[in-house]
Amino acid sequence: MTDPTPLPHRPDQAVRPAGAGEPDHDVAILGAGIAGSLLACVLARNGVRVLLLDAGTHPRFAVGESTIPYTSVLLKLVAERYQVPEIRHLASFHALRQHVTDSGGLKRNFGFVYHRQGRPQRPEEINQFVIPKLLHHESHLFRQDVDAYLTNVAVRYGATLHQHVRIEDIDIDGAGVHLGGARGEEFHARYLVDCSGFRSPVAAKFGLREEPSRLRHHSRSLFTHMIGVQPFDDVMTPRGAYRNPSPWHHGTLHHVFDGGWLWVIPFDNHPESKNPLCSVGLTLDPRRFGDLGGGGPEAEFDAFLRRFPDIARQFRTAQTVRPWVSTGRLQYSSTRTVGDRFCITSHAAGFIDALFSRGLTNTLEVVNALGYRLIEACKDDDFSAARFRFVEDLEQGLVDANDDMVHGAFVGFRDYQLWNATFRTWAISTVLGTFMLEGVYDRLRRTGSDRELRDLEHAKYVGSPFPTHAGCNEMLQRTSATCQEVDRGELDAAVAAGRIFDDLASAEFIPPPLGLAQRENKFFHATPPRMARSMRWAMTSAPGDMRDILLGAVRGFARDKVAPHG
Amino acid sequence: MTDPTPLPHRPDQAVRPAGAGEPDHDVAILGAGIAGSLLACVLARNGVRVLLLDAGTHPRFAVGESTIPYTSVLLKLVAERYQVPEIRHLASFHALRQHVTDSGGLKRNFGFVYHRQGRPQRPEEINQFVIPKLLHHESHLFRQDVDAYLTNVAVRYGATLHQHVRIEDIDIDGAGVHLGGARGEEFHARYLVDCSGFRSPVAAKFGLREEPSRLRHHSRSLFTHMIGVQPFDDVMTPRGAYRNPSPWHHGTLHHVFDGGWLWVIPFDNHPESKNPLCSVGLTLDPRRFGDLGGGGPEAEFDAFLRRFPDIARQFRTAQTVRPWVSTGRLQYSSTRTVGDRFCITSHAAGFIDALFSRGLTNTLEVVNALGYRLIEACKDDDFSAARFRFVEDLEQGLVDANDDMVHGAFVGFRDYQLWNATFRTWAISTVLGTFMLEGVYDRLRRTGSDRELRDLEHAKYVGSPFPTHAGCNEMLQRTSATCQEVDRGELDAAVAAGRIFDDLASAEFIPPPLGLAQRENKFFHATPPRMARSMRWAMTSAPGDMRDILLGAVRGFARDKVAPHG
Repeated sequence: MTDPTPLPHRPDQAVRPAGAGEPDHDVAILGAGIAGSLLACVLARNGVRVLLLDAGTHPRFAVGESTIPYTSVLLKLVAERYQVPEIRHLASFHALRQHVTDSGGLKRNFGFVYHRQGRPQRPEEINQFVIPKLLHHESHLFRQDVDAYLTNVAVRYGATLHQHVRIEDIDIDGAGVHLGGARGEEFHARYLVDCSGFRSPVAAKFGLREEPSRLRHHSRSLFTHMIGVQPFDDVMTPRGAYRNPSPWHHGTLHHVFDGGWLWVIPFDNHPESKNPLCSVGLTLDPRRFGDLGGGGPEAEFDAFLRRFPDIARQFRTAQTVRPWVSTGRLQYSSTRTVGDRFCITSHAAGFIDALFSRGLTNTLEVVNALGYRLIEACKDDDFSAARFRFVEDLEQGLVDANDDMVHGAFVGFRDYQLWNATFRTWAISTVLGTFMLEGVYDRLRRTGSDRELRDLEHAKYVGSPFPTHAGCNEMLQRTSATCQEVDRGELDAAVAAGRIFDDLASAEFIPPPLGLAQRENKFFHATPPRMARSMRWAMTSAPGDMRDILLGAVRGFARDKVAPHG
Repeated sequence: MTDPTPLPHRPDQAVRPAGAGEPDHDVAILGAGIAGSLLACVLARNGVRVLLLDAGTHPRFAVGESTIPYTSVLLKLVAERYQVPEIRHLASFHALRQHVTDSGGLKRNFGFVYHRQGRPQRPEEINQFVIPKLLHHESHLFRQDVDAYLTNVAVRYGATLHQHVRIEDIDIDGAGVHLGGARGEEFHARYLVDCSGFRSPVAAKFGLREEPSRLRHHSRSLFTHMIGVQPFDDVMTPRGAYRNPSPWHHGTLHHVFDGGWLWVIPFDNHPESKNPLCSVGLTLDPRRFGDLGGGGPEAEFDAFLRRFPDIARQFRTAQTVRPWVSTGRLQYSSTRTVGDRFCITSHAAGFIDALFSRGLTNTLEVVNALGYRLIEACKDDDFSAARFRFVEDLEQGLVDANDDMVHGAFVGFRDYQLWNATFRTWAISTVLGTFMLEGVYDRLRRTGSDRELRDLEHAKYVGSPFPTHAGCNEMLQRTSATCQEVDRGELDAAVAAGRIFDDLASAEFIPPPLGLAQRENKFFHATPPRMARSMRWAMTSAPGDMRDILLGAVRGFARDKVAPHG
């Protein structure tokens, strides 16, 4: 542990070979992807001597490209709390282009178009969440650039980076962590964080994978980058049949159907784009969707498009520019994520599904909780598991909350009205959670104290996007339970949808002007008039906690417009 | 061979698995790097059914980042001749940023700073070639982005791309080319171009490597990307000791010394840069420079910096952000590059040294010569080696010309005055060659006829940057012979330098206002007044061919400013 101000590196430090003579580091991080690099930035910026190890090297392909407002507020919170302004640059499309890379796409909405196999898409079976103008535009992150950017930032703050290092031996004792690489490299640190992925060396070493997993959701995925994907807006006839407020191609488009969903994440969807690619991924519950005939992912995708001609239109001129990635079951979990001197995080700990863009938000929540604990543990020279207990609870809670949400969504995909209902419970929980965090962020900026963030760790619903609110979380739990009843065949989907809509109608914490209880209102669209009416509601008839949350967020937005950071 | 207008691909074409059932292609290209992708663009745009195969995938690290005016005029020529405007976008820093990627660096000059081991750098021992304002700014290409861009363009024009395909079996007969991949893939085409690299499958199959190589030059290289490399302008004291017209950091900086050179190619050298990286590569003649003590490339670079403290200043805050690449001897050549139904090009055929940025120009010259031959061969269904004879001569000539030039330069590095002299023969030949090609490009644009380009193939000095000019090539040959005499210990370096300076002074084809014969003028700096005086010389007392070349180029520049393409 050195001073909290990063020291400039001596020239020989850049060129010293790895080996037995290497000076000790405080924290070794496995994986220089987005999770490991974010954590390395946070720690190195605050004087922790970070060793960042990766089995491969940048640049490299990665998915998980779509940000949501919840991602952006977490990016701002982490940037502010740990004083890493470079992380703030990822928190809006504008800042991303100005400071990081011009390869990203624009995200003004989340679009959901419901399809039935072999039948024409019904223009009324759609949903769209339009990101309020009050917030920044979100982004489609071209991950190869963003991930390398964050690694570079970590190195600039003093992290020691070694790539092409595959860790095979891990030995943890009272003195510290000893790591051995496949080519005989040796490393030594005081704590180990595994940010790698499914094949986590730490999970393997300590037998942390939960077998069988407790997770209910079950899916596999095929994904790639394509060129020549046409905007869905341009291929559907008749033009104007859809009344969605924001063009599908200005956001992340989800084609949803019984048994799965398909993501369409364009990078070419704004006038200054120089990136012609589009991220495309098909996620299926193989228990329900059935076989696509094999023959490799290209053939499977082709077979899929034949079943959904209205989706296929968008791909008439599309060609892959990289090999498809085809996965087995995506879901895995861990019995434990924290031990003495180690922690496994993010995709090393577990994974559910890309559906609600929770991968990056979960990563940020864990970095946020882990960062200050590690900084303090380094100062105190106490790395016992007890200090990291909350990180364990958070990681398990995040996986469970995401599992409930995605499982419910997949059950919803069986019946449009059930999806139409469950969509809203997800949307309102993430929006209200974002607003709550925007207020926290504003107060953090003004006071410089992270007290409120520490207090938030005592919230009851750890892992929920809106962890402080009983009403919202009880509604999420009822929605999940309802979907499970449908899944077990004990409840009719239409009845289930009605139950959830009733729940939405009676929820006191939902601003009525948003119209979430109206089935025929397919859009979550907080227009300025609706926002104004929601604010009036907040000031006059909302429950006190909701008033505070909404007003706190709006105050923050206003201040951010006057004195934006980044 | 389909129509010359590219056909839109059918959706099933994007998703058909590779295999025995694959329809035939006209030309299979191995390697989707910059050479293979450029050729694929040119062919696919003109209706050739291209199969582009690569053992790996984008994005990936590559060096060869620095363009020269000769590169840019070739990019324009190829773009115009084959009607691929996307290639034109690489021909200037401005167009690159506008159309391709904002990751590139600016190149306003080639700087050479001469160092002596263990002694302070002498501020008068420098050379700088300033790119005339008349031309565009050149670029430092961030190759991972540019290479992927060109692959994407090729796919957009209809090339079929398969990645992660390692070709292990090659069978060529009268019926065509049969390719077998490591995982059992099968491909069939009418012609095979190997654009891969040193480990060319075609060179291996047909035993084409020249062993031992005829090449005189001998070097190895260590290279990486770094962060935190400081501008050389900022670290040398006293400030202002250097009188170079353009800041070192606004171009490609070459630290040269007896036994080798070090490249510094920043991407962060302009106000809008978002790319903090700098390409750094050390190239050494191990026969002359001696051992750096081993311990891996990081340790070797460290040892190198200890020998050159004035170079080390630039690297005080530098850190690598990717693993070093360390090569063996860089030079290799082929006994033959063309056969019935196959050709090996570019780095699959041979390589010399990155010193004069000839890798990309050589690639473009070969693509230019190979493109129309393949288009015509496809139409005629005649792929006999005889039709590609010029490509063979060109490839061998390019390697030999580059070998002469770099070998002479390395001999020059032994003595500043000899380098000061040989530098000028390289500079004038590439500048006059560029001017000649600018005139050809202008006439191609105006007439639409490639007749002049076909006639150029009959020039005597095939492979030279200025192949039409006897006087210039004879001077290059005398320079090379002089350096070889020094190399053999038969001639004193100072005497050799004098001889080359005398040659420069008496060369009728060199515009006298450039002052190339004056030892104390360390800069090749065509300021507007010097350009004006050179033009007056061209119109009044220059040899007729030089008058035509200079006026032709200036006319072209003027027209390009009025109606730029890209």
